[in-house]
Amino acid sequence: MGPINKSREDKETGRVEAFSDGIFAIAITLLVLNLKVPAFESLAGQSLESFLFAQWPVFLAYLLSFATILIMWVNHHHLFSMIRRIDNTFLFINGGLLLVVSFAPYPTSLLAEHIQHDYAVLAMAFYAGMSLLAAIFYNLLWNYASRGNRLLASNVDKNMVEAVNKQYRFGPHIYVVAFMFSFINVWISLLICLLLAIFWAFIGIFGKPEGKARADYQPSQKAV
Amino acid sequence: MGPINKSREDKETGRVEAFSDGIFAIAITLLVLNLKVPAFESLAGQSLESFLFAQWPVFLAYLLSFATILIMWVNHHHLFSMIRRIDNTFLFINGGLLLVVSFAPYPTSLLAEHIQHDYAVLAMAFYAGMSLLAAIFYNLLWNYASRGNRLLASNVDKNMVEAVNKQYRFGPHIYVVAFMFSFINVWISLLICLLLAIFWAFIGIFGKPEGKARADYQPSQKAV
Amino acid sequence: MGPINKSREDKETGRVEAFSDGIFAIAITLLVLNLKVPAFESLAGQSLESFLFAQWPVFLAYLLSFATILIMWVNHHHLFSMIRRIDNTFLFINGGLLLVVSFAPYPTSLLAEHIQHDYAVLAMAFYAGMSLLAAIFYNLLWNYASRGNRLLASNVDKNMVEAVNKQYRFGPHIYVVAFMFSFINVWISLLICLLLAIFWAFIGIFGKPEGKARADYQPSQKAV
Amino acid sequence: MGPINKSREDKETGRVEAFSDGIFAIAITLLVLNLKVPAFESLAGQSLESFLFAQWPVFLAYLLSFATILIMWVNHHHLFSMIRRIDNTFLFINGGLLLVVSFAPYPTSLLAEHIQHDYAVLAMAFYAGMSLLAAIFYNLLWNYASRGNRLLASNVDKNMVEAVNKQYRFGPHIYVVAFMFSFINVWISLLICLLLAIFWAFIGIFGKPEGKARADYQPSQKAV
Repeated sequence: MGPINKSREDKETGRVEAFSDGIFAIAITLLVLNLKVPAFESLAGQSLESFLFAQWPVFLAYLLSFATILIMWVNHHHLFSMIRRIDNTFLFINGGLLLVVSFAPYPTSLLAEHIQHDYAVLAMAFYAGMSLLAAIFYNLLWNYASRGNRLLASNVDKNMVEAVNKQYRFGPHIYVVAFMFSFINVWISLLICLLLAIFWAFIGIFGKPEGKARADYQPSQKAV
Repeated sequence: MGPINKSREDKETGRVEAFSDGIFAIAITLLVLNLKVPAFESLAGQSLESFLFAQWPVFLAYLLSFATILIMWVNHHHLFSMIRRIDNTFLFINGGLLLVVSFAPYPTSLLAEHIQHDYAVLAMAFYAGMSLLAAIFYNLLWNYASRGNRLLASNVDKNMVEAVNKQYRFGPHIYVVAFMFSFINVWISLLICLLLAIFWAFIGIFGKPEGKARADYQPSQKAV
Repeated sequence: MGPINKSREDKETGRVEAFSDGIFAIAITLLVLNLKVPAFESLAGQSLESFLFAQWPVFLAYLLSFATILIMWVNHHHLFSMIRRIDNTFLFINGGLLLVVSFAPYPTSLLAEHIQHDYAVLAMAFYAGMSLLAAIFYNLLWNYASRGNRLLASNVDKNMVEAVNKQYRFGPHIYVVAFMFSFINVWISLLICLLLAIFWAFIGIFGKPEGKARADYQPSQKAV
Repeated sequence: MGPINKSREDKETGRVEAFSDGIFAIAITLLVLNLKVPAFESLAGQSLESFLFAQWPVFLAYLLSFATILIMWVNHHHLFSMIRRIDNTFLFINGGLLLVVSFAPYPTSLLAEHIQHDYAVLAMAFYAGMSLLAAIFYNLLWNYASRGNRLLASNVDKNMVEAVNKQYRFGPHIYVVAFMFSFINVWISLLICLLLAIFWAFIGIFGKPEGKARADYQPSQKAV
């Protein structure tokens, strides 16, 4: 009964992951459509160099959003490596998370367009608010799945579950800070978002010993 | 013979699901392209806040369509968890359903653009008509697959098949009502579509006992 | 040795199919971006009804292209159900086919924009030319894979291989006819493309006995 | 222990490959959005033929970028057929590579728009710079994975690893040459990029004996 059960456990999340991967991949690739190529005629005397340099907030917003979605995907991957079962509530929480992911190109574009203009505060607050919402959905997803081991693999490493609990608990609070700073100083708010993205990435890279990292992935015997 | 046969059964739908997942994921992500970011110059004195608030029908249409496609995907997932074999007729009915799914960004955009203007009736009728068409294709797909257990797993739960039969039978009728109401009162028609989306979601979440829900997913031993 | 070898055979095409499925799914979904929603202001007195009716060639081109890509996907699925091994030449022929598939939204859009105007001939020739190119790539792919059973499963049904050979041999010739007719009468050329799409679909649906159809899919034990 | 371990090894890269495939597939398909269909009204006396012919740099850039992304995907496929384990550093190097892939439509569009105008040098340098960056990320990815067999399959063919090492070592150098030539003669720089694409493709097709090619793919027992 054991092995059969185990193989059943593994397969349940397959199609949810495939669908989620699709949305992550499309959202991250659609970001490039925010980068406008100036037609030769529209340059009107301005050099292409100066046009591209003037677009630096667009490129920065592109990089920030690419990194954010990539890190969200890596985290999604981590969580799902510990999750074995699904139910409909879980599907809809995951759907809410995917809503934020697929919506991401919009606040990115808004920020890129307005960070140097009069409405920088609103655009930055919108962007930080979206990041906050994403952090909240990750917490909901993880809390729902991990409470009483509801959807986790039976052999999941308790220490790793506890580590994720800790990391996730403080994420939303910092995004609340970034959100509030957007009304005081847009650039500090942006910096917090950037630093947090770098922090999440480094947590990912250095946050646990190599051996752990492998152990983390090994149980992920899903096919996709 | 038994297990080999069973494993063969499971694999047949794999690539259809992957292709369908791709289309669902892209259609749901393309919706964000309907949300326009105003260039700073084009605001022309209007504040960004008032611009964004004035766009509320666009955001509402975005949310409604996101929820609709997500719910359609969850239902697609449910049906395919009971389906084991495919044939060409099934592939083309599924193709018709995917046509409606991938077309969804258009009526969404039409509704968002016109619900506050003179052509709200036409735009709402178009939107409700699309929802009706989707419901009809789901019925065709399910009837074709389930009649005489044509494409279902041999060990599928008869009660679950009957439950889906019941739920699906009344869906199109309510969308006919929503369609007709679009000619009387656009907002009532929109409300019916919203309520129906919420209803489908709750059916998904609360419509069957936890144990059932798991049983529903467990047979889905497909790799993707 | 036997079963291990067989399982190895099955897996080789997995990632090519996933990548191809992705391109088919995106190309078929991007078609919707050709359908323009008129802004309320731009209607300028014209009713939305008359605007939408005047757009019928756009909708027809959308449907034709959706059907064409869907049928190409079904055929791709069929071929790959018989193919077990891959090599680099095969990957690049498949890449050429994917080039045509992902390019499809362009001639579709060109046809929709110009079929009612002075350059209908050029737009129709472009469209028929693309269909011809697709048919040629399918032939190249199939010939390369099937010659001397180069990449086919060892236990593939010879009759089915022969049936595909026959069907594929005459496809390009009819698209040559459609291409030539585009210079004589655009609408006859379009009709040939439509009829050919319907024909391919019916070949798919009715072209072989049920039992065969199932046998056709059963060997496809790939995971995706 | 052996076979279980082996099956675990195979599965680790599954979801990374699926996510990467998604991004490759979307980036390659989004390229078509760079091809503009002229509205009938906007032709203004110019014939459609002359409009399309004048667009040849756009079509050339489209083909070059399609071929480049396709070849990058084939190479990605090759590398991953030898890689069995992943860790977070690897995920982020792969993320950097995907950044370049998903960014590719932008320099392509820039090149197509400006290669016949005053800013051809900048556009070409941008394009060659991107290709160089892609080559560098491939080297980083491969070096990280292959150093001391860190992430490779234990039974990987040493000769093949050495062959890839050799091929990859000289790639970036040639792109440096192409990059520098963009400041001297744009067309020579473009030609180098074209030749290099053809070279990579031929390496792929003819660079190893048939038997090797199969051996290369057979270990790839991943499900997707």
